[in-house]
Amino acid sequence: MDLHPLRHTAEHVLHFAMQNLYPTLLKAMGPATDEGYYFDFDYDEKISEADFPKIEKEMQKIINLDLQMVKAEIDEKQAREIFKNNPYKIEWIDLILKRNEPLTIYKMIDKKGKVYDIDLCSGPHASSTGKIKAFKLLKVAGAYWHGDEKNKMLTRIYGTAFFMQEELENWIKKQEEAEKRDHRKLGKDLDLFVFSDLIGKGLPILTPKGTIIRRELEKYVLEEEMKWGYEHVITPPLAKTDLYRTSGHYPYYQNTMYPVMKVDDEELILRPMTCPHHFMLYKSRPRSYKELPVRFAEIASQFRYEKSGELSGLTRVRMFCLADAHIMCAVSQAKEEIKNVLNLIDSMNKVLGLEKGKDYRYRLSLGDRTDEKKYYKDDAAWEKAENVLREVLVQEKAPFFEVSGEAAFYGPKIDVQMKKVNGQEETAFTVQYDFVMPKRFSLTYIDKDGKEKQPIVIHRSSIGAFERTMAFLIEHYAGAFPLWLAPVQAEIIPISEKQADYAERVLKNLKEAGIRAEMMAENESMQKRIKLATEQKIPYMIILGGKEEAEKKISIRTRNGNQENMINLAELINRLKREIDEKIIEPDS
Amino acid sequence: MDLHPLRHTAEHVLHFAMQNLYPTLLKAMGPATDEGYYFDFDYDEKISEADFPKIEKEMQKIINLDLQMVKAEIDEKQAREIFKNNPYKIEWIDLILKRNEPLTIYKMIDKKGKVYDIDLCSGPHASSTGKIKAFKLLKVAGAYWHGDEKNKMLTRIYGTAFFMQEELENWIKKQEEAEKRDHRKLGKDLDLFVFSDLIGKGLPILTPKGTIIRRELEKYVLEEEMKWGYEHVITPPLAKTDLYRTSGHYPYYQNTMYPVMKVDDEELILRPMTCPHHFMLYKSRPRSYKELPVRFAEIASQFRYEKSGELSGLTRVRMFCLADAHIMCAVSQAKEEIKNVLNLIDSMNKVLGLEKGKDYRYRLSLGDRTDEKKYYKDDAAWEKAENVLREVLVQEKAPFFEVSGEAAFYGPKIDVQMKKVNGQEETAFTVQYDFVMPKRFSLTYIDKDGKEKQPIVIHRSSIGAFERTMAFLIEHYAGAFPLWLAPVQAEIIPISEKQADYAERVLKNLKEAGIRAEMMAENESMQKRIKLATEQKIPYMIILGGKEEAEKKISIRTRNGNQENMINLAELINRLKREIDEKIIEPDS
Repeated sequence: MDLHPLRHTAEHVLHFAMQNLYPTLLKAMGPATDEGYYFDFDYDEKISEADFPKIEKEMQKIINLDLQMVKAEIDEKQAREIFKNNPYKIEWIDLILKRNEPLTIYKMIDKKGKVYDIDLCSGPHASSTGKIKAFKLLKVAGAYWHGDEKNKMLTRIYGTAFFMQEELENWIKKQEEAEKRDHRKLGKDLDLFVFSDLIGKGLPILTPKGTIIRRELEKYVLEEEMKWGYEHVITPPLAKTDLYRTSGHYPYYQNTMYPVMKVDDEELILRPMTCPHHFMLYKSRPRSYKELPVRFAEIASQFRYEKSGELSGLTRVRMFCLADAHIMCAVSQAKEEIKNVLNLIDSMNKVLGLEKGKDYRYRLSLGDRTDEKKYYKDDAAWEKAENVLREVLVQEKAPFFEVSGEAAFYGPKIDVQMKKVNGQEETAFTVQYDFVMPKRFSLTYIDKDGKEKQPIVIHRSSIGAFERTMAFLIEHYAGAFPLWLAPVQAEIIPISEKQADYAERVLKNLKEAGIRAEMMAENESMQKRIKLATEQKIPYMIILGGKEEAEKKISIRTRNGNQENMINLAELINRLKREIDEKIIEPDS
Repeated sequence: MDLHPLRHTAEHVLHFAMQNLYPTLLKAMGPATDEGYYFDFDYDEKISEADFPKIEKEMQKIINLDLQMVKAEIDEKQAREIFKNNPYKIEWIDLILKRNEPLTIYKMIDKKGKVYDIDLCSGPHASSTGKIKAFKLLKVAGAYWHGDEKNKMLTRIYGTAFFMQEELENWIKKQEEAEKRDHRKLGKDLDLFVFSDLIGKGLPILTPKGTIIRRELEKYVLEEEMKWGYEHVITPPLAKTDLYRTSGHYPYYQNTMYPVMKVDDEELILRPMTCPHHFMLYKSRPRSYKELPVRFAEIASQFRYEKSGELSGLTRVRMFCLADAHIMCAVSQAKEEIKNVLNLIDSMNKVLGLEKGKDYRYRLSLGDRTDEKKYYKDDAAWEKAENVLREVLVQEKAPFFEVSGEAAFYGPKIDVQMKKVNGQEETAFTVQYDFVMPKRFSLTYIDKDGKEKQPIVIHRSSIGAFERTMAFLIEHYAGAFPLWLAPVQAEIIPISEKQADYAERVLKNLKEAGIRAEMMAENESMQKRIKLATEQKIPYMIILGGKEEAEKKISIRTRNGNQENMINLAELINRLKREIDEKIIEPDS
């Protein structure tokens, strides 16, 4: 059953309860969301989470009354009369009239017909407030009216609601787990990234530990993609605006592009996309059919000026670095290439520990052909491109679903839909079939018959943006990374100071073997140090006592609590090197 | 002997010769340079290199007359009278007067006192034109008056001159060699980088081959620096202008910084330097003396808007990527850290094939303490810093010389002076001792005694900017890179189509061993293909004929023409892997 109407009703229950408790409050707005609902209001006094029990009690009263939710259409005059004391609602009324939409209200009515609450609303709603069997208020935050910093800061209360108490409890458990795994929290606890007010919002700084993860991922992408026949290139992260005018990105992406930099007679801009840069390289000399497919890959910085309210940790940033590539190929090669791209995605994401069908699935995003402003007019080309993508997905038995109207402006695409720890799905990156850019950039090749032909372009990523992938992996592993990605792979813990020399020698051996090892020789108890290393999710702790030193052995303990005593260091080094080289995810399982 | 006065005289000979040949020409300016001299003039007809023999003949006549170069001071009235018909000279006169400098002329006079030429000039000059024993005109180019695109385009003739014919011949030979090795030419011939008008000037695109070199260098820098105790980090390549106002870069570098990007309430700018970013990371949590030295390294993009006339290949670009680092340490640790930095530079540059004392030397750049606008006022700190740098250079027996007035605004520095193939020396990168930024950014650490202290900062690179290093290495090796850097390491050349299968198997084996191998199986003669591969400076050619196939062996030929027949593929693979792993520069020598 769709939770939206129920949650929308819960929001009406909330605002009515609030009005009862704080009669001078002005309602502004309150929609249902994927996770629940929220209510924005204007009130001079501070409302805090400490007030939630009181508010929830009032809400429960309204739910118990099982008031009916009744819709009615009204005219402008009625609307202006009903809401005359609320400037926010008057603004809504003006907007609705401007859009030529009907003015509707929802009333809460009891069985005797008594009206309890009226709100400007187009619904839909649950039939009555009694349908809400489980609800919870979540948090209080500030929110600008219309999300605009120039407007007044209102108060926002977030809540959620379900059909059953059990559903709410499950959801709370999942939220708690997601909060524990939140990459913003773990990023701080494990010292992976920080932000700086003086540098700017949405611009993360990777610490030494975060940088190790990032560089390991980059190395893997470079090596693996080259094995799969990609040629890595490096192109500038900025260019003349003319380049993006030619590509057509400028009108489409202008809102999220950084401002133009005018210098001398040039207009430069930070790039929102890498594709036109790769096209210029492709065009730097004539191309023959023998060279196709040309597969240019790049670890490519891209810049999007996201609104400050939408920034979040490493997931929504103002600059990111995509494992990007563009394949220029003959139309006849497209299917094989897309198949290879999907295989590459599956293969690389499997190495990262992400399982197809469980951690991610595919979405085939088709174009809305009637929207000629958004979609390039060429029905036959759209038809062909969509069929190729669909055929590959079917042949490869890929888990996928189709949606309309989500294509790129230059062609249909396959979205990689990642499932986050809180159960939400989001598009991590895409594979796009593009027949428009080759025309815009006059990309050509000389075919076998000596004639000039036009290639198609496949835009793709393999593991997505490094920032987002890191955020995703932090949450996926709750910070307990596979050995090859772990910033510190082994922590040496000498039991007492007597083992200092032996510990130094072990540390040196590990480092020389290329293992990222550290020593925790503080004046803390061994138990305390094991606890610290475990909290830091360090895969291996190497415990050294008198017995170990005497026999020239070591004992190890994993972050999962497994212990192995008196083994050879050389043996451990071989084991770790194998685990690193083979990128083993969980050696214990 | 100083060549400047002689070359300046040669320029006077040139302009006098030109006036004799083209009487309506207007002289604009003409200085001596490090490589010779040039002469800018305004003339309506086209002068080309085809006119050089005629001009040189006229110049030789003037030299043969052995005219004396005689200086005289004149007053404003005389000056305006002498040069009344030349608006360029009138502009010079105005400028000299504005600067309160004396107005001087140089005359060419024969033994009888006859005046041949008069020019506004402050000298110095050779005593007479006969001192020029060797000269040559080099090329014609356009040049804007005062280097400003808004002014008229003048004609510029470049020339050079020497005391002896032999010196000129040596110089010409060196120039020819330098031209052959010019990284802009080789970059094209070997397909390493390209430019695109639509992307913008000074923004190179690295091709797949160029990217291999760059990524190998990056990998080396990352691995090597981490071995030397650096922690690599990744920080954003842009920040709020406030950051560079705090650092003081904004006023000093404003001319070469990109324009400010205003978005919402933020002012962002592309970074000219990495240091303030590393300071923000340092400041992201309290630091203890136990952590020092903190050595943050980064493969860091930086942006400088160089004038379009100054852009050149990969050497002068508008965006570059520096092997950058900042060491935050106690004053007492500075000397040891600087010593380690010099050792790291020597060690890494040796691996790149650059020899200390031959390919590069050090320059100790001291501050001009009287210039308080340019140098931070703290004599004691300058004294200490300069002494530390000098002591390390002396102790390490580093080849170095000292100059005054070339320090950074925040402290003295050691410049790494690279010698280019044409014999010119340029500053490749620097090691700086900085006591100013720690104050500006309030960098602190808690010392043993529990008190807050201020660290000093050492700014350093290890191999410089990747773009410039690549340019330098291309020229140094004339494109014949050591195996580990070579974009294609082995080219397989089957003698006939009969060996196609065998060649494919050899190719597969090489690739699986991680060797960058290619096959040249075109319908060209073997000799032609060997010639092509040699021109592409590919280190190893693997020749496969019937005999090789029958005995399951291979024959190899190096780009130097050495040949070895009938060896085992496994043996070759081991040899190449060793050569790659050990970064051997010239296996034959």
